[in-house]
Amino acid sequence: MAKLNELTASAAARVLAAGEASAEELMLSCLDRVAERDETVRAWAFLDPELALANARAADASRAAGYTLGPLHGVPVGIKDVIETADMPTENGSDLFRGQRTGRDADCVARLRNAGAVIMGKTVTTELANQTPSKTRNPHNPEHSPGGSSAGSGAAVGDFQVPLALGTQTGGSVIRPGSFNGIHAMKPSLGLIPREGVLMQSHTLDTVGVYGRSVEDLALIADSMAAFDATDAFSFGGRRSSLGADMALETPAPRFAFLETPAWPQADDGAQKAIEGVVDGLGAGCVRESLPSPFDRILDFHAAVMAAEMVPYYGGMIDASPEKASEMIKARLAEARKVAAGDYVEAVLARGPINDSLSLLLDRYDAVLCLPATGPAPHGFATTGSAIFNGLWTYLGVPCVTLPRLSVEGLPLGVQLVGKPGEDGKLLRVARWLDRELGG
Amino acid sequence: MAKLNELTASAAARVLAAGEASAEELMLSCLDRVAERDETVRAWAFLDPELALANARAADASRAAGYTLGPLHGVPVGIKDVIETADMPTENGSDLFRGQRTGRDADCVARLRNAGAVIMGKTVTTELANQTPSKTRNPHNPEHSPGGSSAGSGAAVGDFQVPLALGTQTGGSVIRPGSFNGIHAMKPSLGLIPREGVLMQSHTLDTVGVYGRSVEDLALIADSMAAFDATDAFSFGGRRSSLGADMALETPAPRFAFLETPAWPQADDGAQKAIEGVVDGLGAGCVRESLPSPFDRILDFHAAVMAAEMVPYYGGMIDASPEKASEMIKARLAEARKVAAGDYVEAVLARGPINDSLSLLLDRYDAVLCLPATGPAPHGFATTGSAIFNGLWTYLGVPCVTLPRLSVEGLPLGVQLVGKPGEDGKLLRVARWLDRELGG
Repeated sequence: MAKLNELTASAAARVLAAGEASAEELMLSCLDRVAERDETVRAWAFLDPELALANARAADASRAAGYTLGPLHGVPVGIKDVIETADMPTENGSDLFRGQRTGRDADCVARLRNAGAVIMGKTVTTELANQTPSKTRNPHNPEHSPGGSSAGSGAAVGDFQVPLALGTQTGGSVIRPGSFNGIHAMKPSLGLIPREGVLMQSHTLDTVGVYGRSVEDLALIADSMAAFDATDAFSFGGRRSSLGADMALETPAPRFAFLETPAWPQADDGAQKAIEGVVDGLGAGCVRESLPSPFDRILDFHAAVMAAEMVPYYGGMIDASPEKASEMIKARLAEARKVAAGDYVEAVLARGPINDSLSLLLDRYDAVLCLPATGPAPHGFATTGSAIFNGLWTYLGVPCVTLPRLSVEGLPLGVQLVGKPGEDGKLLRVARWLDRELGG
Repeated sequence: MAKLNELTASAAARVLAAGEASAEELMLSCLDRVAERDETVRAWAFLDPELALANARAADASRAAGYTLGPLHGVPVGIKDVIETADMPTENGSDLFRGQRTGRDADCVARLRNAGAVIMGKTVTTELANQTPSKTRNPHNPEHSPGGSSAGSGAAVGDFQVPLALGTQTGGSVIRPGSFNGIHAMKPSLGLIPREGVLMQSHTLDTVGVYGRSVEDLALIADSMAAFDATDAFSFGGRRSSLGADMALETPAPRFAFLETPAWPQADDGAQKAIEGVVDGLGAGCVRESLPSPFDRILDFHAAVMAAEMVPYYGGMIDASPEKASEMIKARLAEARKVAAGDYVEAVLARGPINDSLSLLLDRYDAVLCLPATGPAPHGFATTGSAIFNGLWTYLGVPCVTLPRLSVEGLPLGVQLVGKPGEDGKLLRVARWLDRELGG
């Protein structure tokens, strides 16, 4: 048997349920890996081994008393440090929140605990989930970035320090680290998972996402958190089917639409060749498509929305304590303040027509296939990499998955799939098919 | 009996239902008044007497055949020329739309026809329902403005040329002309009446409003149009009670909260004294109140929203044909393009907290009482008057009514009442009580 810390979350949950290992043993295995690697990878903003073990032992005690808490019973989860946790600090990667203990769980964390998850610790986020690089290193090569802003979650799962973790995406902060760290990641439809208790940067964009070691893992953790939040205008009501059940249905070979997207010219040659290899390998099952105007302007639309909404959420606090903010985020705020309101409103209004054209495309194909990033993790730590293959989908609120099935220059690169808003289960089903096809 | 054209709409509907007059006779009476006064007042953008009479005769024919079409059966209505009508042009007060015939009714117009109303003609709007003054004159003194942008609707009802009319309000375009022209006017809650087929200037603000000669008239016409529009994110679902029934309930003396509002320093002395006379007259039934911050910033918030949303709706068409737009609206567009996106987003986000504080106030009072304008209709035609006593309420989406019960320097001035969003029926009930109290 693989080491406990190397199991997928789904396999770990089965091992625990079968009594073949305890939650404490699983946690000890994860903590051993952290002890061995933390000096290099630096994925954790807060990790108290005793607290993590106590949480794991509590899960074992529940099971010993005859309770099955839920599908994540005993499985460790890392929480990006922009998401509130009752028993751990929430510092948002910023001196503005240094030492903050809110004493409460975000809605999604409470749901994870209710599903039996053991909250292991808080993973490193870039400053205010923005672009200032963090201390975290890529586990595949510590000279490279782990991406951002969910740097610690991506690196910790990629380094087998924890089987599952939460991230958030406003630009490309879930999918990009997923690709860079060689793991499975999902940014669900906007409004699938409640974001109450999560640092707000942009109400039109901010989305809670998940990391795991298989498509099944993504369904497992997302199902544990999916819920309607009546206080959030972007949360959607109606039926939330089981992603796990939808995913597990057998499917005939799906039809894929390959989109270069307007970000294509900025992709590395190696990344372009790698994804084209996938397209070619799928043969008639994958067709090169394009979307009509104004899709060609989507990068600008996303940038305008992200910048404009950052101003009211961050502007006041950074102005009040500029010494607690990096020069990078202050420069970004200054640029954000130059965005014209008319351009922002135009960008918000353009979402409807672009989503309509994407929907027409996805009436004829089962998923869009595209790059998840411009290339593998960049060397050095000047940036966390570009989000331009992600922001466009975040802007549309559509679900995205990345599969760790490519390699460029010895570093991982993902394959991104995109679905219709609200059709997260179908997207996972298609992703599972492709993941197997590509050797997963 | 008063002349037919001088009846309230409610009285006219009763006269017609009783067979004491025909729709044709009522229309002839209105057309006689137009013939007598149009050279002075100039309220109509399109009025074809033969078409108006044919529409009236059709209503009579239906009644003769035994049908009662609805509560407005045979009653003439003027339609602001930013609202589409199947049988008349819709020019939006702009050379950009000169001669436009869309061949279809706006949803609200279709609902009026379904209620039996006779569409009499299109009333003058300022250019694109904006601030450039129109050709229309105030019927109480043609040296004065009728206000804007619903200039023709306000003047035509104020001059007894038509008993009912539609307006639209983005800043103060329904309530201000109501006050200036000495009539009853209502800007309902945002989302009460569908705005499909109405020129869009600002999705956050644009609201269809109504003019009449009594509070009962306002309920009568608003009831005929209130409906949910699933295609409009600002339309609200749930129960739409009968405003007329709500209004007609007897009420104990209501409690009023008098708000100066941040616009107060810009009001004329005469207007301030007039409204304070109302406050004093109500004694213990009216208490001077104020709202906490950020209410003090509400004028800026409204201005930011109105300007920013104008850019994508009007910018492209004015840029493409600048010779068809006035210098005034071009200057306004240029200013609107300078609004920062962050300020716009802050303004949109601030609505919630301000509405919460207003709601707490209206838990303790039955309505807010305040000025509807800075004073009576301004002399001359350089401007249509200030909307700063209206824009703040349009921004909040709350229902407003003005009652023609004050007079300053021989010109009419209204009394404005404001209620909770969605509680339009209660607001009309309170308005009816106050209207009687003030001699109506």
